[in-house]
Amino acid sequence: MSAAVRVGIAGLGTVGAGVLSLLQQHSGLIATRCGREVVPVAVSARDRARDRGVPLDGYRWFDSATDLAQDSEVDVVIELIGGEGGVAKAVVEAALEAGKPVVTANKALIAHHGTALASLAESHDAVLAFEAAVAGGIPALKTLREGLSGNAIDRLHGILNGTCNYILSTMRESGRDFDEVLAEAQALGYAEADPSFDVDGVDAAHKLAILTSLAFGCEVDFGAVYAEGIRNITASDIAYAEELGYRIKLLGIAERSDGGVEQRVHPCMVSTRSPLAQVEGVFNAVLFHGDFVDSIMIEGRGAGAGPTASAVVADLLDIARGNAVPAFGMPQARLKSLPTLPMAQHEGCYYIRLQVVDRPGVMADVTAILRDEAISLEAMLQRGRAPGEPVAVVLTTHETVEERMQRALERIAALEASLEPPRIIRIEPI
Amino acid sequence: MSAAVRVGIAGLGTVGAGVLSLLQQHSGLIATRCGREVVPVAVSARDRARDRGVPLDGYRWFDSATDLAQDSEVDVVIELIGGEGGVAKAVVEAALEAGKPVVTANKALIAHHGTALASLAESHDAVLAFEAAVAGGIPALKTLREGLSGNAIDRLHGILNGTCNYILSTMRESGRDFDEVLAEAQALGYAEADPSFDVDGVDAAHKLAILTSLAFGCEVDFGAVYAEGIRNITASDIAYAEELGYRIKLLGIAERSDGGVEQRVHPCMVSTRSPLAQVEGVFNAVLFHGDFVDSIMIEGRGAGAGPTASAVVADLLDIARGNAVPAFGMPQARLKSLPTLPMAQHEGCYYIRLQVVDRPGVMADVTAILRDEAISLEAMLQRGRAPGEPVAVVLTTHETVEERMQRALERIAALEASLEPPRIIRIEPI
Repeated sequence: MSAAVRVGIAGLGTVGAGVLSLLQQHSGLIATRCGREVVPVAVSARDRARDRGVPLDGYRWFDSATDLAQDSEVDVVIELIGGEGGVAKAVVEAALEAGKPVVTANKALIAHHGTALASLAESHDAVLAFEAAVAGGIPALKTLREGLSGNAIDRLHGILNGTCNYILSTMRESGRDFDEVLAEAQALGYAEADPSFDVDGVDAAHKLAILTSLAFGCEVDFGAVYAEGIRNITASDIAYAEELGYRIKLLGIAERSDGGVEQRVHPCMVSTRSPLAQVEGVFNAVLFHGDFVDSIMIEGRGAGAGPTASAVVADLLDIARGNAVPAFGMPQARLKSLPTLPMAQHEGCYYIRLQVVDRPGVMADVTAILRDEAISLEAMLQRGRAPGEPVAVVLTTHETVEERMQRALERIAALEASLEPPRIIRIEPI
Repeated sequence: MSAAVRVGIAGLGTVGAGVLSLLQQHSGLIATRCGREVVPVAVSARDRARDRGVPLDGYRWFDSATDLAQDSEVDVVIELIGGEGGVAKAVVEAALEAGKPVVTANKALIAHHGTALASLAESHDAVLAFEAAVAGGIPALKTLREGLSGNAIDRLHGILNGTCNYILSTMRESGRDFDEVLAEAQALGYAEADPSFDVDGVDAAHKLAILTSLAFGCEVDFGAVYAEGIRNITASDIAYAEELGYRIKLLGIAERSDGGVEQRVHPCMVSTRSPLAQVEGVFNAVLFHGDFVDSIMIEGRGAGAGPTASAVVADLLDIARGNAVPAFGMPQARLKSLPTLPMAQHEGCYYIRLQVVDRPGVMADVTAILRDEAISLEAMLQRGRAPGEPVAVVLTTHETVEERMQRALERIAALEASLEPPRIIRIEPI
């Protein structure tokens, strides 16, 4: 049996404690699977006194995580501090510069600095692994980078944020509105006190940027991701979706075409028959489309101590087994810088919800605006009549271009009869 | 860039042609991903003249596949001949004995001889890889062996045979009976002229035996798999299932408990809310349950040239990248020989369909038999009455033991009022 792998863990929050607990409970199994022991030897966190529900005896304590990363008795560094820069970045850089393999669950760090860090890793012949950064316990990156390595990937769709999926599922099941369900999710610990990272689509955008790079062999480009969250989704949108045969999901979508790459995170209407429509609650899922394999969907828990620890340890065991793949599936120098297709040129079908005064001529004005933009209607729903009163009208369109839709929405919003800004949800044919 | 990997392909059926086509189309992408070229150099098949829709120019032709395996200019051997023994086995053995990595899609071979071949591979320090043997394009083995390597797996459920899933889906959608849908599947090429391998559960059992070994770290034991096919499923069973909130799926199930391992393939009633219930048509899926990750489901095409080629090439690229994991996830000597839990001791709930004469006292006899075996009823369905005529009666039970159920079925079958052997479908709580 080879020498043991000595592991240093920087960051002892929920996930750090989960990783320690896994390594402690499964030390025998892991040694059997790797042909060598994988042993935590050092830890670092801000507060030494806190009880983390897992014994820390026998591990060397570092107040400085970068010191831990540089310590000569640490072979592999696990970064679980979080945040796109600061200490987390310093720790990862220090470890890579020392030629040590790094495992991280830090999506913000990889989304912002992935290409540079991959380059640093390569120049020091060190592994940089981040399975846990995307979709928690789901081995989405391994599937893409290794399981589908014979395919050209042309698109992927992901439910990448469990908080949003939980909120949307609960809204649908209970008929309640966003604010109320968000408050409940916060009380249950499924959403943060400041929920904007999740509900505004930033977290999903981080994960999408990483998946896009691996899928298409391009540099990570978080800035190119169009992100729109779920705050404007109402209980009535969900009810209309059901009536139209759709479910509303916050999806991260990457598509490759001859012109470049589209990366977008926004609420989508997906057919109730789509496998993604069946993914409910805190679960995540990613649907890959490759030219030989066709569609592969993988579903599981996207967060939580156990699932995230599972992903971190999978990376660690690859390292212990001596298996390595470049961070983004190919040498960093081979990653292309692909043009971004701007959201304004996105083509698709749309659901539009209007709140207007119910009086003669309003729909004539609305449909004239759509005609002017060459947007053709597929369906219109208006329940009941309330002359002179506010009424909701829902329209769905055939395929059109985003910039046309945005121009039409601006003009509709400016109508005197418009009581609220019109809202759209893009219809995604999967 | 390292030296090219020279590939020899033994067997040029649909999958062999698919692999060649993939390697030809994606030679540049593959070289970028692996840091070296992966080049087919030699092929072998029975009929040199046949047009396979893919150019064979420039490849050396071998009439003998074992000669190809032993050729000094072939670095990796891909075995796509099929069959549990014979030439396929000879080719794999010859390649391993020469210390060459082998990739195979041959489930029968691995199910019957997996442990011995893994041992042979190890003793010659050669890789033996068989992702394509289980669930076609789905990277199920990689997920289990690497993606979930930090988990103790306690159970798995798989839809492992696309032919059966297609037949069951079509029966449900069309309301037609087994024989008719099978004939249609044969006409469409989804089922073989002799369908018994598929519809009797043998193919699913091969795949299950392989998954079980990887999941629990035990020797492959195909003989220990209980297998029952779908021939006895009727249109009425499917209609009753729908009424009871279930869907009927042929599942391969492996469960680990303190007493040993249960491996079984049989039709199951699964809740319509289960993710496996949503997997329709020719698609396959595997649901893994690990102690840290909880549930992970992966779904995709379980057969066909493209998906199977995708899996074969994924194995090949692992080899070209220099990444290796022992065939069953740990050194062969560490694989345990776990006791088999006999089907007679299986515990679960049951659906029972009886065809009886509708006359007073029949249900009293049936329920008395069930009471004698301490089997308690959950529900009973009988549609309409037809005094003195044949009538179908459906019962569902609470949890009981298989041997009790079998004894009860024997006694029910012997009742004078029984017109057909009673049929059961096991209810699976997933």
